[in-house]
Amino acid sequence: MPVRPPATGEDPRIVRSRAIILAAAHDHFVAHGYLGANIDALAEEAGVSKRTVYNIYGGKEELFRAVLDRAIGIAEEFSRELADAMATVGLEGLAVRLVRVLLSDRVVPLRRLLIGESRRFPELAAAYYDRAPGLVMRTLAEHLPTLPGLRIDDPDTAAAHFAFLVVGAPLDRAMFGEQRLGDTELERAALAGVAAFRRAYAAAGNGP
Amino acid sequence: MPVRPPATGEDPRIVRSRAIILAAAHDHFVAHGYLGANIDALAEEAGVSKRTVYNIYGGKEELFRAVLDRAIGIAEEFSRELADAMATVGLEGLAVRLVRVLLSDRVVPLRRLLIGESRRFPELAAAYYDRAPGLVMRTLAEHLPTLPGLRIDDPDTAAAHFAFLVVGAPLDRAMFGEQRLGDTELERAALAGVAAFRRAYAAAGNGP
Repeated sequence: MPVRPPATGEDPRIVRSRAIILAAAHDHFVAHGYLGANIDALAEEAGVSKRTVYNIYGGKEELFRAVLDRAIGIAEEFSRELADAMATVGLEGLAVRLVRVLLSDRVVPLRRLLIGESRRFPELAAAYYDRAPGLVMRTLAEHLPTLPGLRIDDPDTAAAHFAFLVVGAPLDRAMFGEQRLGDTELERAALAGVAAFRRAYAAAGNGP
Repeated sequence: MPVRPPATGEDPRIVRSRAIILAAAHDHFVAHGYLGANIDALAEEAGVSKRTVYNIYGGKEELFRAVLDRAIGIAEEFSRELADAMATVGLEGLAVRLVRVLLSDRVVPLRRLLIGESRRFPELAAAYYDRAPGLVMRTLAEHLPTLPGLRIDDPDTAAAHFAFLVVGAPLDRAMFGEQRLGDTELERAALAGVAAFRRAYAAAGNGP
């Protein structure tokens, strides 16, 4: 597990403990939700004392926020990578990446947790939406009108149509814990979504 | 609040209490989640004694299952009405109904609760998926190939494309508690989804 280099003057043992606690707390909160989480059990899973957790984070709510801030930051990085890839991989390549990231074992449980806790922590759910799916859709809206062979009059609507043609159905199924499709089926569904998008947004003379 | 007529021999006071408790418990579980729910507070909100709740339902888990079974039954009824309407209202009429039902104050909180509790109660989340969105998609897959002007080679994929072009983006935003679109914007988004669907699935000679 990667441990960030300590900031000047910071005790390297605290830096290490923090990384270990955050990783264990992520898995613990995903498994038990906010109310079901237990700092004693979590400390044991992290292999640190309960006192260490309280000394570094203060309490359960602060730890939850730290875990979610970090997870949202990682989701934002994934989204930025997807956004950066748009210029080079084509719509089909983008669709396959999108479905792989969004249906991953990292993203599905995070989305479930944020949706389940969106009433208790509305600002975390809103931050995720803005920094992950929102970022991808904004970048799509900028990118789609630059592509040859398409006619895009309303970039925001076209971006939403692309995203939900590609990931809508498998992601919604996954939210309810329905059996996750295999990689081949996911890829097939993503490419069928791109094909429908290309037909819907074909420039005149390019139609079926 | 409608109270069902008592089954033969059933005490009408129990039938009435049950209806009152289920309605109050629905609001309470939606507001607090499963672990955050409290039978004392819930009984007070329902205006009955804690003892009455335990006598009728046994405990929190049984009450939660009874509330969710009922809510899933109502979602199934909505879905069956949508399915029945397909033959008469056209794709545009269907899209507007779909977005109104799915973005309603009844469905959004229920979906959040089921997604948040899908790890603890996987069979309830699966039952909802099968009996509500699953039912709508199966009916769409049967209905779409019968419509004039469309070419549908893969009915299941076309059904998913229709549903997520129409409700995908606003529903995903709503799951994270992002500001709900107004009725006019929702309707506009739904109709833009149908227009994209018609372009994507236009029969030859009917294209753009």
